[in-house]
Amino acid sequence: MNRYCVIMAGGIGSRFWPLSKNNYPKQFLDILGTGKSFIRSTYERFLPLVPPENFVVVTNAAYKDLVLQQLPEIKAENVLCEPMRRNTAPCIAYAVYHILSQSPEASIAVTPADHLVTNEVEFQRIIGRGMDFVEQNREALMTIGIKPSRPETGYGYIEVDTKPGDAIVPVASFKEKPDLATAKRFLAAGNFFWNSGIFLWSTDAIMGAFRQYLPDLVRLFDGGKDSFGTPQEQSFINAQFEHCENISIDYGVMERSQCRYTVAADFGWSDIGTWGSLYTHAAHDEAQNAVSGNAVVVDTSNSVINIENGYEAIVQGLDHCLVALRDHSLLVCRLDDEQQIKHWVEKLG
Amino acid sequence: MNRYCVIMAGGIGSRFWPLSKNNYPKQFLDILGTGKSFIRSTYERFLPLVPPENFVVVTNAAYKDLVLQQLPEIKAENVLCEPMRRNTAPCIAYAVYHILSQSPEASIAVTPADHLVTNEVEFQRIIGRGMDFVEQNREALMTIGIKPSRPETGYGYIEVDTKPGDAIVPVASFKEKPDLATAKRFLAAGNFFWNSGIFLWSTDAIMGAFRQYLPDLVRLFDGGKDSFGTPQEQSFINAQFEHCENISIDYGVMERSQCRYTVAADFGWSDIGTWGSLYTHAAHDEAQNAVSGNAVVVDTSNSVINIENGYEAIVQGLDHCLVALRDHSLLVCRLDDEQQIKHWVEKLG
Repeated sequence: MNRYCVIMAGGIGSRFWPLSKNNYPKQFLDILGTGKSFIRSTYERFLPLVPPENFVVVTNAAYKDLVLQQLPEIKAENVLCEPMRRNTAPCIAYAVYHILSQSPEASIAVTPADHLVTNEVEFQRIIGRGMDFVEQNREALMTIGIKPSRPETGYGYIEVDTKPGDAIVPVASFKEKPDLATAKRFLAAGNFFWNSGIFLWSTDAIMGAFRQYLPDLVRLFDGGKDSFGTPQEQSFINAQFEHCENISIDYGVMERSQCRYTVAADFGWSDIGTWGSLYTHAAHDEAQNAVSGNAVVVDTSNSVINIENGYEAIVQGLDHCLVALRDHSLLVCRLDDEQQIKHWVEKLG
Repeated sequence: MNRYCVIMAGGIGSRFWPLSKNNYPKQFLDILGTGKSFIRSTYERFLPLVPPENFVVVTNAAYKDLVLQQLPEIKAENVLCEPMRRNTAPCIAYAVYHILSQSPEASIAVTPADHLVTNEVEFQRIIGRGMDFVEQNREALMTIGIKPSRPETGYGYIEVDTKPGDAIVPVASFKEKPDLATAKRFLAAGNFFWNSGIFLWSTDAIMGAFRQYLPDLVRLFDGGKDSFGTPQEQSFINAQFEHCENISIDYGVMERSQCRYTVAADFGWSDIGTWGSLYTHAAHDEAQNAVSGNAVVVDTSNSVINIENGYEAIVQGLDHCLVALRDHSLLVCRLDDEQQIKHWVEKLG
């Protein structure tokens, strides 16, 4: 099998404080109470498509043990450690050079570690078909589009020329996060899809695109070409990674390429990027609260109550609020104001 | 010195959950952030009047170590352990029999362990004068009245016949907790005072009253008279205490006696019986929040935020609420509904 899966797991998840903290980011947590962390679910979702030894996880050195603890089946040398964060283009280049040292003609699925998919069968059908496609079209860069269910302003969109049905079709353009009016127009038009951040390509296609659109990045990694797959790989990365341009794969490659494809998928996807999206996807009690943990909830509605095991809580008299308690840290706030969490955390002594 | 101080410290403080729990009740906590627990403050408040070896603490066996830890100066044999709670009359009888074994002609101040006094100089003046009085009037039962500052419905009241000024005067009657209209009338009248639960008397006076009004209690304790002050005291108490009538000293003795006195004191007293009274006595920020602990408080007003050392908290978007976090337990509720806390705690799994 020449199919690889690259799981990008370097995020620090500050939007989910206090559940997600620097020392234990969101991808390692079971925020939805499914019994599995996001990264474990991601791994299992790809497992019918990719053999365990072909999973590559890119993360921060601080999380290497967590990755191996949650994914004991994968090879330790396939847990790649970024010394610092440099956005998705350098992250993916690192993984691709590592894979090239093992397999010069691979096809690769790249995925964030912390997304939710509720229909795994459909997911595997779509991804399997996409990998067939990029193996037959070795210049194609494919990104998975998601059929929008609401005028979401928190995601980027992919435009295609005509409504694609179930087919894999060329991308017409990528759209940044829209305002609400634009998002409503996208939804009504039927030829705009959410950009899931899941990519499929062959090593030929992505290396060709890197050479064409990010030549400095290629020059930097080529300087250590012989070290990939050897004990010298990490010291090369530690010395050079900081010099990579901080640029996303969307902006650095996908928006510039002329050979990009998408599909309009519908497999119950969410990036669970906010407490609000967690609220949307969690089970609700009769007062529309999403409650997890040992909590007595009284006279409270439309709220998220998330109490870590080992704690107990009484919550009374709230509406549209968030109460999260984990690891000696408490957050009580209005759900509508959750985008401020990052700023409040900075104020903590 | 024949002066004794009996500190009643058997309460479990369920109204202050989660700060105060069965294993760590309110009297052992520094709820107000003064740097000292209530029982320690109580001890130090009486120390200019009573020598350390004459302090007697009545508590539950479960709290004996806590008492000795917080009051290392007192004698271990003066920490009396009730096997179960039987209200204040048996508690005080136990202490009086214990004191009689050391000193047959003592004068005794009895005090709850968990009250606040802000003017200790005035407190010591009032209590010192009261102890002189009960030493000169060896049949007198004295209770300390507090000049009311508001029409409080949470306290019992002491009525005297005329406005007493600074004098020690006879009690006309005791009044149960009044409704608001009655409390307003008491406040306006000027001859009604809060019943502080602090008592002063000689051993002669209290033993005479016990014999007259609670003969069953005297009979029970007389049955173990020789054991008090000996190693047999605890086993006698363990065997017999449960047979004591569950009755308060107010109802069992003070309301029946004809020889009772009071004084209208003004030394900044509160029983800190509720979160609301804690709010009243704590320092406030500019948004009228009483905040203690490592907390970032945003867009929140008129609230109590009480975060134990070792925890951190962000609290946003609340008004007239209580947020208390201690010992792996969280309470978030409206301050107006705090009388329900006990019921919610019972619901916790």
